[in-house]
Amino acid sequence: MERPLIALLTDFGRDYFVAAMKGVILSINPRAQIVDITHDVPPQDVQTGAFVLKAVYRWFPRGTIFVAVVDPGVGTERAPLLLKTRGYLFVGPDNGLLAPAAEEDGVLEAYRIGVGLPQLSKTFHGRDVFAPAAAYLSLGVEPRLLGTPVAQWRRLEIPEARVEDGVVYGRVVYVDRFGNVYTSARSLPGAAYGDVLCVETPRGVLRARYVETYGRAAPGDAVLLINSEGYLELAVVMGNAASAYGLKTGDEVKIRRC
Amino acid sequence: MERPLIALLTDFGRDYFVAAMKGVILSINPRAQIVDITHDVPPQDVQTGAFVLKAVYRWFPRGTIFVAVVDPGVGTERAPLLLKTRGYLFVGPDNGLLAPAAEEDGVLEAYRIGVGLPQLSKTFHGRDVFAPAAAYLSLGVEPRLLGTPVAQWRRLEIPEARVEDGVVYGRVVYVDRFGNVYTSARSLPGAAYGDVLCVETPRGVLRARYVETYGRAAPGDAVLLINSEGYLELAVVMGNAASAYGLKTGDEVKIRRC
Amino acid sequence: MERPLIALLTDFGRDYFVAAMKGVILSINPRAQIVDITHDVPPQDVQTGAFVLKAVYRWFPRGTIFVAVVDPGVGTERAPLLLKTRGYLFVGPDNGLLAPAAEEDGVLEAYRIGVGLPQLSKTFHGRDVFAPAAAYLSLGVEPRLLGTPVAQWRRLEIPEARVEDGVVYGRVVYVDRFGNVYTSARSLPGAAYGDVLCVETPRGVLRARYVETYGRAAPGDAVLLINSEGYLELAVVMGNAASAYGLKTGDEVKIRRC
Repeated sequence: MERPLIALLTDFGRDYFVAAMKGVILSINPRAQIVDITHDVPPQDVQTGAFVLKAVYRWFPRGTIFVAVVDPGVGTERAPLLLKTRGYLFVGPDNGLLAPAAEEDGVLEAYRIGVGLPQLSKTFHGRDVFAPAAAYLSLGVEPRLLGTPVAQWRRLEIPEARVEDGVVYGRVVYVDRFGNVYTSARSLPGAAYGDVLCVETPRGVLRARYVETYGRAAPGDAVLLINSEGYLELAVVMGNAASAYGLKTGDEVKIRRC
Repeated sequence: MERPLIALLTDFGRDYFVAAMKGVILSINPRAQIVDITHDVPPQDVQTGAFVLKAVYRWFPRGTIFVAVVDPGVGTERAPLLLKTRGYLFVGPDNGLLAPAAEEDGVLEAYRIGVGLPQLSKTFHGRDVFAPAAAYLSLGVEPRLLGTPVAQWRRLEIPEARVEDGVVYGRVVYVDRFGNVYTSARSLPGAAYGDVLCVETPRGVLRARYVETYGRAAPGDAVLLINSEGYLELAVVMGNAASAYGLKTGDEVKIRRC
Repeated sequence: MERPLIALLTDFGRDYFVAAMKGVILSINPRAQIVDITHDVPPQDVQTGAFVLKAVYRWFPRGTIFVAVVDPGVGTERAPLLLKTRGYLFVGPDNGLLAPAAEEDGVLEAYRIGVGLPQLSKTFHGRDVFAPAAAYLSLGVEPRLLGTPVAQWRRLEIPEARVEDGVVYGRVVYVDRFGNVYTSARSLPGAAYGDVLCVETPRGVLRARYVETYGRAAPGDAVLLINSEGYLELAVVMGNAASAYGLKTGDEVKIRRC
């Protein structure tokens, strides 16, 4: 029998909190196989956490249990949430973090989690609630035995772009490690590879060539391309577009013919 | 049969040294299951490494083998140490790193490690001594076959707080990823949730409200709370207390009624 | 039967790209055991990636499948490469990244990879080509079924030092987390432990004592030693040599009697 897979996403960074969660999971189910998605979501940035979870969940085997913890409201009334979707299980705070991924896959059942370690802290539900819930799921416990059904959960929108008169109006939704800037747009209507377009940003206007991949332009060139997640991305070949143009998540961008 | 669990804590950061240790462990015991605690202990900061190990070990299953390497004295006379406690095995340099965790759990046997890779380097005992020792332990080799008994090991104190006339005298023992400041105090005698207290630091006096959890105050507010590890913590809601107040590990703090 | 081992090295840093690769691998082979070497190779620094892969591969069990992705040319004509060596399998872009490690071990077979996910992106072959290829290898698929034989691959030299008239002429080949500076030299001909030598760098001349290990000098002292990888290393005891002397990968150094 295969070992059940638990994938973790948090904003715990370099700290030992993730290790405590892993210790709890393996104490309950030593056969669990744990994979880290990332723990470097910017502190308490639920929006970025939700974006990353939505970007990555589909690449995991069906049946994977996702535990996501970006949780500024820990210890307050926000519920601990468990969502069973067509292909996966999602565990985390009910603050919108799980919603975009789970809703894309299709939510079948939703529960307010009612289990946890006996000595429950007020500030670390990752260890005391979400890790145990995931570990029980990995043992085959039915979701309905771990909480009470709920009809609603907190939504969170990942911005989408609109196109008017051939102009794309979008936002920066993610900046990756290379400084590549993901916009909310998914296409460049009417543009052909090789076209040079104008990108209006809060700091000014820049020109970028629409290309198929990074290697189709010279080092230092600004390019636009549809990236591996399907987003229209602004990049600088062998460089860092976010720092070159002072762009960050949430910034508005407008892309048009020059 | 379950796979034996080896948990690693080092100050090796982004480097490939941890991977070399994992390669050695898996070369000796391919069935070992390896979990990272953290590798971002500040370089050569034995005190912080010991604090983290003590904070996290208890969440792991009994029988876990901990390998901790923060080792400024590598290659000198400092012994390689193996401690068998009531519930766990600890492997690492005899410089105090293992002591607080192992002593809390209760040391049953102590050894100076006498095994290692045939071509032993003078500067990387993590790979050449501690990883092989842990791998042999994970195969079921008795600790007494891996070294010579010792009656003593290097101690290291994690500071404790004292209370006099209702004033708490403590130190900063840890700063986490969110900038939350752990003091050595474990309680706030006489204080009730909602009380505002004065915190004297090396940089001045600040006021903070004693709360049950972060969500009980407004963003930007300074709060005091007993955190998930049982320490009295100074935090700024949705902010970073360490940078806001210039606090770092080792700083003295005094907490009193204003 | 042991679980097959796949070891990953990338420049993807904090991002979720590694997680997508792991998801793909585990979707194809849930029994694969995945180990991270490092994901903090400086962005698009093929030279450093190749150095790290060569430094670490030999510590892994024979049969380990290495997937290395530092890939500025993704989506261009550069081939996806699979090298079978005496002891290992290497998968990654044909840009020199795999060459130093694979050639040291001895290349037996070389292929241009011809498999991948059905919906192949132009910018993320880590997920779409290299992860699937490694996963198929881990299931026991023969390398010759995954690509077409090639007679050549891109070479990459890791600099070596030369000695003339007792003077060592070398380069910085790596700077580790502690700021220790690895030079391309492997020995200090004619020097004995305790000797003080002059190191000429682009920023000036410094004096360093040749020692056996860090603990043989006082905190703050500059030392030269043969490190655990066999390189002549410049270090500052309990300090950071790279920042103290402004040294970085590629810098020329000359070591001589003062």
